[in-house]
Amino acid sequence: MPSTIPDIVISRLPVYLRALERLSQEGQDVTSSHELGKRLGISSAQIRKDLSHFGGFGKQGTGYKIAFLKDQLRQVLKVEREWEVALVGAGDLGSAVARYRGFAERGFHIAYVFDSAPEKVGKRIDHFVIQPVEDIRKIISENGIKLAMIAVPAENAQQVADQLIAAGVRAILNYAPINLNVPDNVHVQYIDPVVHLQRMTYYLT
Amino acid sequence: MPSTIPDIVISRLPVYLRALERLSQEGQDVTSSHELGKRLGISSAQIRKDLSHFGGFGKQGTGYKIAFLKDQLRQVLKVEREWEVALVGAGDLGSAVARYRGFAERGFHIAYVFDSAPEKVGKRIDHFVIQPVEDIRKIISENGIKLAMIAVPAENAQQVADQLIAAGVRAILNYAPINLNVPDNVHVQYIDPVVHLQRMTYYLT
Repeated sequence: MPSTIPDIVISRLPVYLRALERLSQEGQDVTSSHELGKRLGISSAQIRKDLSHFGGFGKQGTGYKIAFLKDQLRQVLKVEREWEVALVGAGDLGSAVARYRGFAERGFHIAYVFDSAPEKVGKRIDHFVIQPVEDIRKIISENGIKLAMIAVPAENAQQVADQLIAAGVRAILNYAPINLNVPDNVHVQYIDPVVHLQRMTYYLT
Repeated sequence: MPSTIPDIVISRLPVYLRALERLSQEGQDVTSSHELGKRLGISSAQIRKDLSHFGGFGKQGTGYKIAFLKDQLRQVLKVEREWEVALVGAGDLGSAVARYRGFAERGFHIAYVFDSAPEKVGKRIDHFVIQPVEDIRKIISENGIKLAMIAVPAENAQQVADQLIAAGVRAILNYAPINLNVPDNVHVQYIDPVVHLQRMTYYLT
């Protein structure tokens, strides 16, 4: 797989995959770039161009076989397998993340939950026993965990990120409302709903 | 304010604002495009260019006064005021959203919570009394609510969006893992952590 595919293309593939999964659930077997585009608010030309980076999954005029395209996208995104994820932070936000079933349903298995508060360590959220942050390095590296989610207060997030990266984590989903400084070989994505709301209020009158 | 500012510029302003709020909390009064850029992983030239769309808030060489720049960005984004937000969905995800304090801390006040389940209506999440979805139109339009968050299952999200829009909502933060079809005068942003994770697994080896 060429590594020169623009990140903006990669960023759209999970959205295509999600739409295809939805179409499957609705009982559909075949779709077109036109139908996908209409669902997603993306031009059909853009979708065809994005998919052509990976060799093209459909023929002009006959549409895409959904099951095949889903499999191909899963392989490209490396989500045909299950991923173990570490979660740091077992406060309100971290607990909600730990309980969210959407991760496991779509192949991301929260394997470990860490917190720094002594009164939380050893307790459970759902079936997770909360581990002390001091054990991050040992547990993450011994188990080869590459993905982590951070749900700690902003002031602690960078330090937690540093520990995770030292232990071998290479992709971080950060719920703390702060930007992280990470080496070039580590990927970070952010979830901050307030940023999304503020981006929309600009347009409100 | 010219409406021709590219959306990509608007999308970065809340991130600048967040970083400035953080610098303030750390006790700093003045910053530079260089410092901001380093914190955010964005080039200082990009930051200067983005801010120049709004008349430029700093002078070359002297840096930006943080308090002033924060105020200006808040005005541009229209977040110098408090916004009332409606939340639809009081399941696990919706309850977590309702309890998240980060909204109120940053000017977004959840004013109403709706759910379709009769057994939930009338009950409380925190201090919110859950309202029936049948009352969305009346409550939203009477109170002039323009912002809403959707935290219902994917199969119900479009219908809920249609109701909200009919009631006057013009900006939707959608937590349901599905794309929404909305008119051109309605803005939608999406929160789907799995999409962010899948976008990163592509890069993992």
